[in-house]
Amino acid sequence: MRMVDLIHQKKLGNALSEEEIGFMIRGFTEGDIPDYQMAAFCMAVFFKGMEDREIASLTSAMARSGDLLDLSGISGKVVDKHSTGGVGDKTTLIVAPLVAAAGVPVAKMSGRGLGNTGGTIDKLQAIEGFQVELTIPQFIHQVNNIQLALAGQTGNLAPADKKMYALRDVTDTVNSIPLIASSVMSKKIASGADGIVLDVKVGSGAFMKSIGEAKRLAEQMVAIGKNLGRETVALITDMNQPLGYEIGNANEVKEAIDVLRGRNVEDLRTLSITLAAHMTVIAGRFSNTDQACEELERILDSGLAFDAFLRFVKAQGGDAGMVENPRLLPQARYHRAIIAPKAGYIQAMDTDKIGLAAMMSGAGRKKKEDSIDYAAGITLNKKLGDWVDQNEPLCVLHSNAEHVPDAEKALQEAFTVSAEAVPKTQLIYDVVTSAKR
Amino acid sequence: MRMVDLIHQKKLGNALSEEEIGFMIRGFTEGDIPDYQMAAFCMAVFFKGMEDREIASLTSAMARSGDLLDLSGISGKVVDKHSTGGVGDKTTLIVAPLVAAAGVPVAKMSGRGLGNTGGTIDKLQAIEGFQVELTIPQFIHQVNNIQLALAGQTGNLAPADKKMYALRDVTDTVNSIPLIASSVMSKKIASGADGIVLDVKVGSGAFMKSIGEAKRLAEQMVAIGKNLGRETVALITDMNQPLGYEIGNANEVKEAIDVLRGRNVEDLRTLSITLAAHMTVIAGRFSNTDQACEELERILDSGLAFDAFLRFVKAQGGDAGMVENPRLLPQARYHRAIIAPKAGYIQAMDTDKIGLAAMMSGAGRKKKEDSIDYAAGITLNKKLGDWVDQNEPLCVLHSNAEHVPDAEKALQEAFTVSAEAVPKTQLIYDVVTSAKR
Repeated sequence: MRMVDLIHQKKLGNALSEEEIGFMIRGFTEGDIPDYQMAAFCMAVFFKGMEDREIASLTSAMARSGDLLDLSGISGKVVDKHSTGGVGDKTTLIVAPLVAAAGVPVAKMSGRGLGNTGGTIDKLQAIEGFQVELTIPQFIHQVNNIQLALAGQTGNLAPADKKMYALRDVTDTVNSIPLIASSVMSKKIASGADGIVLDVKVGSGAFMKSIGEAKRLAEQMVAIGKNLGRETVALITDMNQPLGYEIGNANEVKEAIDVLRGRNVEDLRTLSITLAAHMTVIAGRFSNTDQACEELERILDSGLAFDAFLRFVKAQGGDAGMVENPRLLPQARYHRAIIAPKAGYIQAMDTDKIGLAAMMSGAGRKKKEDSIDYAAGITLNKKLGDWVDQNEPLCVLHSNAEHVPDAEKALQEAFTVSAEAVPKTQLIYDVVTSAKR
Repeated sequence: MRMVDLIHQKKLGNALSEEEIGFMIRGFTEGDIPDYQMAAFCMAVFFKGMEDREIASLTSAMARSGDLLDLSGISGKVVDKHSTGGVGDKTTLIVAPLVAAAGVPVAKMSGRGLGNTGGTIDKLQAIEGFQVELTIPQFIHQVNNIQLALAGQTGNLAPADKKMYALRDVTDTVNSIPLIASSVMSKKIASGADGIVLDVKVGSGAFMKSIGEAKRLAEQMVAIGKNLGRETVALITDMNQPLGYEIGNANEVKEAIDVLRGRNVEDLRTLSITLAAHMTVIAGRFSNTDQACEELERILDSGLAFDAFLRFVKAQGGDAGMVENPRLLPQARYHRAIIAPKAGYIQAMDTDKIGLAAMMSGAGRKKKEDSIDYAAGITLNKKLGDWVDQNEPLCVLHSNAEHVPDAEKALQEAFTVSAEAVPKTQLIYDVVTSAKR
């Protein structure tokens, strides 16, 4: 078998066999197939696509390119959750303890990654003492003990995906639905999930800018799950504005704690409950999502989810005092309000730009080596459709630098205010399941 | 400027500017732009194409990536000739002395390359003592002295093209008309040609299998020539059977000498005169191709072209005795006739297969390191449309190995014989000039 022939087949739009894909991914992982051939292949996939069966083979081959996390030591079905990424998305901080409090084990590996803010484990590290490095036995023991563990990726999970993603990033082959779908799913499958709930974001702060595109990605990932025997549900949710009001690390933890304590941050609470509902239904804890939502609302309002969060932070060495009193979390030195130049309704937000401003304030990493300032970030004062008076703050930028002119400029440009009233935005556009497909 | 952004633009089907292409080719030549990015770019070009202006910029940037041969020391306009490659194509051996004999300087650099037989300079080396390595001053001096020099590529001509071609070969991005056209033309321009005559082959022994495809390539190369100020004419000619009767190195030299001495090997003689006619018209020697053909026939029949060839071989150290008596050229030890299994007309030839058989006999290189057996090759006994009796030889395989079973098998499969008479094949399908475009 020769890689150049596989590129040729893909260029013609033909599907590769499972054996061919296995050969390609093994060779690429081991360095026998050079980057330039894989780059040409990825570009051919961008133009010609892949069939469902092929994408499942690719996902499986990438998952099997490294360690496969064995979670059989955990009693109960383990359901993972993944978001394609948005601004202010701290749902995992709420969903994980909520699902655990409902009696379903949550064993989640999480990456750090690049972006507007840190990943979930970076956010948790805003809590003094919180440990993200667990050994596999510690990880499994903790899940069996308190139903919840959240750790940085250990071992060598899906190295083919890692290598391929780095290559796609520099060859402009990121935005190919088969490649995105197989990348996401390969990591989830290597992480040992029995079931997967996906949050596919769409809008001005998401990678997917149209609902149609997001739906195709969602359907593709659900198809992979079906092909590889993992029950998978994908929600298509709005990212035309940040989720909740806080963007950053410490302040996102604080907002999550608020919700766990019963505060109704509407979009954040609704989405968290809905995601948790799908997870618990897949795990067999509840028979349908309506029932699950009802039960989970009760659990959230009773404080049981907050208790689960507190137990979890303590188990991983975090300072419980900071959870009980979030004002103790890192705070920035400077707070600068971005004010509305005129009165009106918030018509639109350039959410990517808001995210970029958060990164420029220090909340996120541009390069892998960058460090994160847990205290930096943004607090929104307004959401889409809200009225703002002239000179009233739209948001506040938190930073440890006195001035972050680029971030301030980005925020000033990010809001569109107009005299017309704005219809209420939809939060959840669609739910894709293998049955519905 | 970032290469990933240029890939992105090409992926969207947008044209790159001259500056962008210059940046890309410089970076690639110097190794700042890695192979994997260029591979992705080439695949995007395969799918999205390039505009005329872009292709001209690419050609020019590749030509300028190394040395530019300065032929200003030669008095008169230098017109180069290039064939896209076919089986039995020894026209250069006839055209070059013919054009020189007509009083037009021929200063040709020629590659060795891979293929069914050696390149022109390999063929010439079948003549004992023939030197292909000339210094630039020697080369220019010889042209000014006897109107004709033919040397191996010296110096560092179009290294970007060399590097890009090697990459395209292993990433299945060879068959892209903008990339083929710019590759051919960049080498001709780096070689210092004022004008260029192209022989674009089409048929069972050519890279281009359809006339439409060949015409697109021809038009593209003519457009490049126009954009870069080099008068360029492209002939689209038949390669559904080998040109002439001989395929190999020594035997091709012998057949060329036969034609230079007045033997009418019909297709070979006609095509050589036509190519030479366009070259001499571009050089300003004759006012139109009809006049040129008439004059060139006369020159050929008078023996002046043969004299020019003899002078040229002597000038480059070759054994004149072998030219005067071609039976002294290397001869193979074994000759095996491939016979017709039934009587009929020669309906079709798988010319690629015949070429492959020649390579397997030792006449060509599969890898750069392979050596060439000058004596090996094939002599056709029949051409398309000829009648063959049962058990009459279709061709003879010459080799220094007693048996070359793969080559014999290929030759047995290469001929289609049928009871139906075959219409005469066309030799020249079209002539593309910038005026006609």
